[in-house]
Amino acid sequence: MNSELRTSTRPVITGIVSVVLLLGSLHVLALRTQLLSRQGGLTHISNGLSYKTYYFEQEIDHFGFFVNGTFKQRYLLADQYWHQGSGPILFYTGNEGDITWFCNNTGFMWDAAEELGAMLVFAEHRYYGESLPFGKDSYSDAKHLNYLTSEQALADFAVLIKGLKSTIPGAQNSPVIAIGGSYGGMLAAWMRMKYPHVVIGALAASAPIWQFTDMVPCGTFYKIVTEDFHGSGLGCSESIGSSWKAIDNMSSTAEGLEWLSSNFSLCAPLKRQEEAAVFKSWLQETWVNLAMVDYPYEANFLQPLPRWPIKVVCQYLTAPTAPDKQLLHGISQAVKVYYNYTGNAECLNISQTATGSLGYMGWYYQACTEMVMPMCTDGVQDMFEPQKWDFGAFAEECQALFGVRPRADWADTVYGGKNIKAHSNIIFSNGGLDPWSGGGVTKSLSESLVAIMIPEGAHHLDLRYNSNYDPESVLNARALEKKYFKLWIKQAAANGP
Amino acid sequence: MNSELRTSTRPVITGIVSVVLLLGSLHVLALRTQLLSRQGGLTHISNGLSYKTYYFEQEIDHFGFFVNGTFKQRYLLADQYWHQGSGPILFYTGNEGDITWFCNNTGFMWDAAEELGAMLVFAEHRYYGESLPFGKDSYSDAKHLNYLTSEQALADFAVLIKGLKSTIPGAQNSPVIAIGGSYGGMLAAWMRMKYPHVVIGALAASAPIWQFTDMVPCGTFYKIVTEDFHGSGLGCSESIGSSWKAIDNMSSTAEGLEWLSSNFSLCAPLKRQEEAAVFKSWLQETWVNLAMVDYPYEANFLQPLPRWPIKVVCQYLTAPTAPDKQLLHGISQAVKVYYNYTGNAECLNISQTATGSLGYMGWYYQACTEMVMPMCTDGVQDMFEPQKWDFGAFAEECQALFGVRPRADWADTVYGGKNIKAHSNIIFSNGGLDPWSGGGVTKSLSESLVAIMIPEGAHHLDLRYNSNYDPESVLNARALEKKYFKLWIKQAAANGP
Repeated sequence: MNSELRTSTRPVITGIVSVVLLLGSLHVLALRTQLLSRQGGLTHISNGLSYKTYYFEQEIDHFGFFVNGTFKQRYLLADQYWHQGSGPILFYTGNEGDITWFCNNTGFMWDAAEELGAMLVFAEHRYYGESLPFGKDSYSDAKHLNYLTSEQALADFAVLIKGLKSTIPGAQNSPVIAIGGSYGGMLAAWMRMKYPHVVIGALAASAPIWQFTDMVPCGTFYKIVTEDFHGSGLGCSESIGSSWKAIDNMSSTAEGLEWLSSNFSLCAPLKRQEEAAVFKSWLQETWVNLAMVDYPYEANFLQPLPRWPIKVVCQYLTAPTAPDKQLLHGISQAVKVYYNYTGNAECLNISQTATGSLGYMGWYYQACTEMVMPMCTDGVQDMFEPQKWDFGAFAEECQALFGVRPRADWADTVYGGKNIKAHSNIIFSNGGLDPWSGGGVTKSLSESLVAIMIPEGAHHLDLRYNSNYDPESVLNARALEKKYFKLWIKQAAANGP
Repeated sequence: MNSELRTSTRPVITGIVSVVLLLGSLHVLALRTQLLSRQGGLTHISNGLSYKTYYFEQEIDHFGFFVNGTFKQRYLLADQYWHQGSGPILFYTGNEGDITWFCNNTGFMWDAAEELGAMLVFAEHRYYGESLPFGKDSYSDAKHLNYLTSEQALADFAVLIKGLKSTIPGAQNSPVIAIGGSYGGMLAAWMRMKYPHVVIGALAASAPIWQFTDMVPCGTFYKIVTEDFHGSGLGCSESIGSSWKAIDNMSSTAEGLEWLSSNFSLCAPLKRQEEAAVFKSWLQETWVNLAMVDYPYEANFLQPLPRWPIKVVCQYLTAPTAPDKQLLHGISQAVKVYYNYTGNAECLNISQTATGSLGYMGWYYQACTEMVMPMCTDGVQDMFEPQKWDFGAFAEECQALFGVRPRADWADTVYGGKNIKAHSNIIFSNGGLDPWSGGGVTKSLSESLVAIMIPEGAHHLDLRYNSNYDPESVLNARALEKKYFKLWIKQAAANGP
């Protein structure tokens, strides 16, 4: 999801919201990791492949007729591998960020396209990237944000697919498979559930479709984060567990605040004891991000990182009972693995909110409306300070921020929660290291609702390009996923259009 | 659908709209056929059974969070047959009218409840009957009408079912089957397609889910109407076919208009030649209504009528080549079978718009937005004056009337059109005499998407109480429907909640 994307862009807010903030936004990173060079309509990506950028006119409101306006939805199309007239379409159901970023981080689709003779389409989610229904006013208030929902996004995808099939020569009968990771994976699964006439199947990678009220325990997410650190070095999770009290101790004096600021190379030094909460929240999110991107090779997904970054981090976290300064010095070394692996960072910024605010706000609005995902910590099963899930307080913050009231039950009502056996042709892949696997479908529900576990995988590792360092489990997962794609395509051909 | 419900309540409008008007409203009839006596919360229906009336708080907008208001959705509940704790719930997905009227015309559900130990729930469709989101302002303009869509109605049903199951002791694990006729049947089918986690199956009786753009020929509906008359008496459809020219001839003179007015006992005599169009449109709808309610026994569905009313009507329509006055006298006798079987009508009203306007407007708005159902006549395959389907002109009328633009493709995009094989557990029943069968699913699509044909049936005859005059085909249909209900309930029990 977007913890992956939160990094250091947070407004200064309370603990309740900080949980939600784990579901931040890709926007900054999308800009930051933009590796593309636009040449006319054609964009080349690193490995010699390319896609074209297009815009599709969409209704702002698919579910009402009073607002009659339209907007331009961006989508990327790559057809160099496509067998025109017979090849399938692999359709990425874009999530909460710039679609070019997803395109560049979903190497699996390019590999699969070659094998299947498929066309690739990456569709941007409304209200993110360039697909803004009301331009710069899109985020101005609740009225303009009103059309930012998963249902509208799914309808965009359905209309776009129908449009592509009716206008691209040879695409009329191309079977379409929805693919997505994280929130995009949830959308892929829901796309198959709600529009099975549009997509013949879906790959929902690291998609926590059960991270909703009363479906999984609220503490599972942070428990998995903790396990990742626990398994990556002796005393590692315990050191983090001890750090919160140490920070409290240190931040109770001016000298201690200064020491923290200096030791952590903070761009803006901590001045007041109250700022410790923000500082701790920032650390907590850093650990979460590390858990999501604990990949087996050097990668630059959220930040440039070494292979198995948590193992590297844990080298500095071996003495949980050490005196405060020694313990926290280790913590500072650890977070610098995350924020300064390149050695180029001049300082660490714990309250950066600038460029990422738009995309960030988008997901936060979604979390404040239909994507209500309860999270909690207890300090016993996890290495964090205890914090209960408090829907009432959460709802009040949403009301204050956006003037909207979250509907905690709606996701279950509209998407079926745990009762989804009537559907078919969905793969749910999950990484054992990924905290989001706690809200994922990790056991097959039927012959055609298949769970694939990748024990050594972090957040949707299977969607990335093949690497020499890939554990066998992810190679097997990718092979199995393609096997199901072929099966679905065969079934679709047998059933007729 | 609602042709069934149009009868004589039309504004004076052009030919294009008159086609749409076939999809009018139940409202007047709901009031007219109100046979109930309310006693406290309990309402007794004719055969000693009773239901209770409740109101459920619903979001006005399930798909957006800016409008945060709620309204009271009416539903009727009958649990005298229910096996508390184990019995299923048969849930009527209310269509475009007062829900009490549907409750009283769906005797099959009461029979089935007894056999299955089921609870009955009849849920009113938003914007009809008493379930008005904005009270008396609900129809005031496009802004207030904005939440009148099938998607919102389905969401109401899903939320209501979830609410009932969580509050009625013993209902938590009750399997729910959606049942509806006409537009309500479309909703029942769509309910199973979109919310298979909420309803285990659906009976979609006389549900023209394919009466949309490019799914069936636009002329099929009127062709079936014509066949009904053709098969009910020698010269019958031919007489009607000849009548239009005869009316044109008659209405070209003041004397002729007077003759028509007098012979047809019109409440408001025709004064101008141009009124002939309205007169003809009214006749056309009368023939359509007769086709829909051509039941094998005396019934009072739209009007009190004899058994096999078209046969009775056709007794007056045996001489298609007779002189105009003789021919039209026969026509006048024929329509009086429909409008004055009781002998109590003082005159016939071809432009009645009063009490029925609210419900009528509701369906018309739906037809002008997502329920765009192309209809046409050619005068060759049918007995009507040729009229092409003209979407452009239709859209202009919708714009003028409501300030909305119809989306002809949307129903296909959202509900799948002809490509619905991925779904399961839906019965599509159709009457061979029913013009709406032309847009219905008349052949089974899979083992669990079952079509049932009732050759001697008019519009959802199978939903009515058993009668001694019932043809065997409808008795078989009802038996088969209940057999499927039992199968689904068994499957659901095997699958767990």
